[in-house]
Amino acid sequence: MSIQKPKGTQDLLPGDVEKWQYVESKAREICRKFNYKEIRTPIFEHTELFSRGVGETTDIVEKEMYTFLDKGDRSISLRPEGTAGVVRAYVENKLYGEPDVSKLYYIGPMFRYEQPQAGRYRQFHQFGIEAFGSVDPSLDAEVIALGYSFYKEIGLKEVTVEINSVGTPEDRTVYRQKLQEFFAPVKHLLCKDCQSRYDRNPMRILDCKTDQKFTEGAPDILEYLDEASTSYFQSVLEHLHGMDIPYRINPRLVRGLDYYTHTAFEYKAAGIGAIDTIGGGGRYNGLVEQIGGNDQPGVGFGLGVERILLVLQAQGVDVPKPNPLDVYLIGLGEAAEKEVTKLLYQLRQQGVAAEKDYQGRKIKAQMKSADRFQATYVAILGDDELARGEITLKKMATGDQLTVSLADLAANAAKTLFA
Amino acid sequence: MSIQKPKGTQDLLPGDVEKWQYVESKAREICRKFNYKEIRTPIFEHTELFSRGVGETTDIVEKEMYTFLDKGDRSISLRPEGTAGVVRAYVENKLYGEPDVSKLYYIGPMFRYEQPQAGRYRQFHQFGIEAFGSVDPSLDAEVIALGYSFYKEIGLKEVTVEINSVGTPEDRTVYRQKLQEFFAPVKHLLCKDCQSRYDRNPMRILDCKTDQKFTEGAPDILEYLDEASTSYFQSVLEHLHGMDIPYRINPRLVRGLDYYTHTAFEYKAAGIGAIDTIGGGGRYNGLVEQIGGNDQPGVGFGLGVERILLVLQAQGVDVPKPNPLDVYLIGLGEAAEKEVTKLLYQLRQQGVAAEKDYQGRKIKAQMKSADRFQATYVAILGDDELARGEITLKKMATGDQLTVSLADLAANAAKTLFA
Repeated sequence: MSIQKPKGTQDLLPGDVEKWQYVESKAREICRKFNYKEIRTPIFEHTELFSRGVGETTDIVEKEMYTFLDKGDRSISLRPEGTAGVVRAYVENKLYGEPDVSKLYYIGPMFRYEQPQAGRYRQFHQFGIEAFGSVDPSLDAEVIALGYSFYKEIGLKEVTVEINSVGTPEDRTVYRQKLQEFFAPVKHLLCKDCQSRYDRNPMRILDCKTDQKFTEGAPDILEYLDEASTSYFQSVLEHLHGMDIPYRINPRLVRGLDYYTHTAFEYKAAGIGAIDTIGGGGRYNGLVEQIGGNDQPGVGFGLGVERILLVLQAQGVDVPKPNPLDVYLIGLGEAAEKEVTKLLYQLRQQGVAAEKDYQGRKIKAQMKSADRFQATYVAILGDDELARGEITLKKMATGDQLTVSLADLAANAAKTLFA
Repeated sequence: MSIQKPKGTQDLLPGDVEKWQYVESKAREICRKFNYKEIRTPIFEHTELFSRGVGETTDIVEKEMYTFLDKGDRSISLRPEGTAGVVRAYVENKLYGEPDVSKLYYIGPMFRYEQPQAGRYRQFHQFGIEAFGSVDPSLDAEVIALGYSFYKEIGLKEVTVEINSVGTPEDRTVYRQKLQEFFAPVKHLLCKDCQSRYDRNPMRILDCKTDQKFTEGAPDILEYLDEASTSYFQSVLEHLHGMDIPYRINPRLVRGLDYYTHTAFEYKAAGIGAIDTIGGGGRYNGLVEQIGGNDQPGVGFGLGVERILLVLQAQGVDVPKPNPLDVYLIGLGEAAEKEVTKLLYQLRQQGVAAEKDYQGRKIKAQMKSADRFQATYVAILGDDELARGEITLKKMATGDQLTVSLADLAANAAKTLFA
């Protein structure tokens, strides 16, 4: 009996994996331009990191983590998101001691035990950035701009930014009270989740997925920001305006965790059913301290690679094809086949992408292979050619033929034919 | 209290992560030339896959796996190596039905619960290739050549290939008996592990790490290969010879698992203490069937990234530095700072790597930042420059100055200054 991949996981095969490579190389490229450097943290962390960094009472930590005891009886969890590990690494490696703002990015797998559905997997992948050590609103705007610019670069259409400010914990103390007053008369009519949110975190009622009808007319957080928070938010918006990044203020966009401060934002894209979220982030001036570090501000985002690929497909965006093969060599007879193996290696060492048959197939089948690999040239080497020390290359697109010496091909092909 | 990374794991930080990016991009580049395509399989698999594909009685499966029950009570293990998952994916996705040989590569994290030491981590990383569907000895030689060429490309010195043939299971039946006869008189003197290997797998006694003195004079497997196996091995060697790849036949190089057939090889490098193994592989014509697929041959290797980096460092190989910054912009005063944020975004959209300050620091501190980032140009924008619509760029290496209009910089910098 054959063994299957675990439920909710994917094999990424040739033909598909190139889309991933494309998205990732674009992510790396945009980070280079914005001067964000890569950080790689472990696939698993001590479970406590996520209880502290994501929140003990969140669905992620309560229900969705892959948590287990290692052979040393430590409670370990596969990371369910990327920020907590990066913050842990920032603190543990004392990056806050460096003179510049730490501008970091990550790309990699995350794990949540959820019911799999279209675009949602138990092993999924995120591209995220985190910037620590600055409370300059231009940095919030830069983070938003990087994500927006990334989506545009990979070819997504109709991407919009929704933005809000959730102020400071002090701003929210007043606001929460106002929200509770507003919802009090209908509390018993709210969905079960929201009834429990009413006491714990009434702001989450605003993004209830079950029923939005009771939120109409609820007070806006923007009216409860103090002067400093209001002016911070204005400044972020001005920078976005200066960069010509279209945004929409959405006062219902809240992030439910206590460490979030000021800027909260999401990216939406058309194409996957209704307009839908393809990424989001915000400022989290309380998180580094919450994880056990000193009081350092941070801002960042996380984008789901699977969702991005869904939208790319839904919008019919053409992902550039991977480089085709440069040359496919066919050897006829034992001596020629040996020469082909050698020639192939010499071409490859020069940087030429070269291939041959490994199954003893007839010429016709080998020509079909060359076609499938979109080889620029095909060349057949028989005993005659071998004796003359020459080979004839045929350009597949035009049928043009070109005879070169074997020695020349072995030594100079990269500089001449495939330059 | 701050939380630490789990024992045996690493944070890869900027300044170090570039070495990883370098090794990985070289691996991808060499695979492009040799026409190997990437495959990505899940980080965890059903535990049974590794019992079957690595071996129930191996140390890896018996002692070193991160195995746990998921919330659906399935026994899941973090992958301890790369081959089993790739074979599973090859079978499950019916890649054997494709007309060409499947030539695949992977790069990624693996997990083994071992005692951490220099270059050995619980989360470690491998670059591996697997080729399925051919019993052509030129493919064995190609696999060996790819690894050898990769090591050379990244700059490793004094890499050698050790090679052997372990024949077919039939060849080994006779050979095992000969080995048992040879070791019988000293069986009670062998180390404890080898005493148990005597019955289960006497070939493993040959690579005993505890004591090699009893293996002297032991029969060589090469003398027990049948004609077909001998001729297969000769053909692999001839191809290596044709490609000018230096190799040394090591008849003691055995791979202990039953599914290995014919070619077995290892790469050794100078520099980490004694000459040591930095990777290895072989042909495994029995593995696909063992994992539950049809009878398809395979050949491949696995190279440890951490070991490669150790040797790079030990040999003093210079890893190319990551691209430095193109330009660092300094804004003086509120209006200029806003313009700088905007200008930065325009430059970045053109492909220019650009940076600024986010901490309200003085000019001097900002100049130091520009230095640390190895910026090619630095430019200061004050109210005067802003009023004139001009900016003066200073080339850091030479001190040369250059004044351009802001509009021109925003629109054409990539094509002119940073081309």
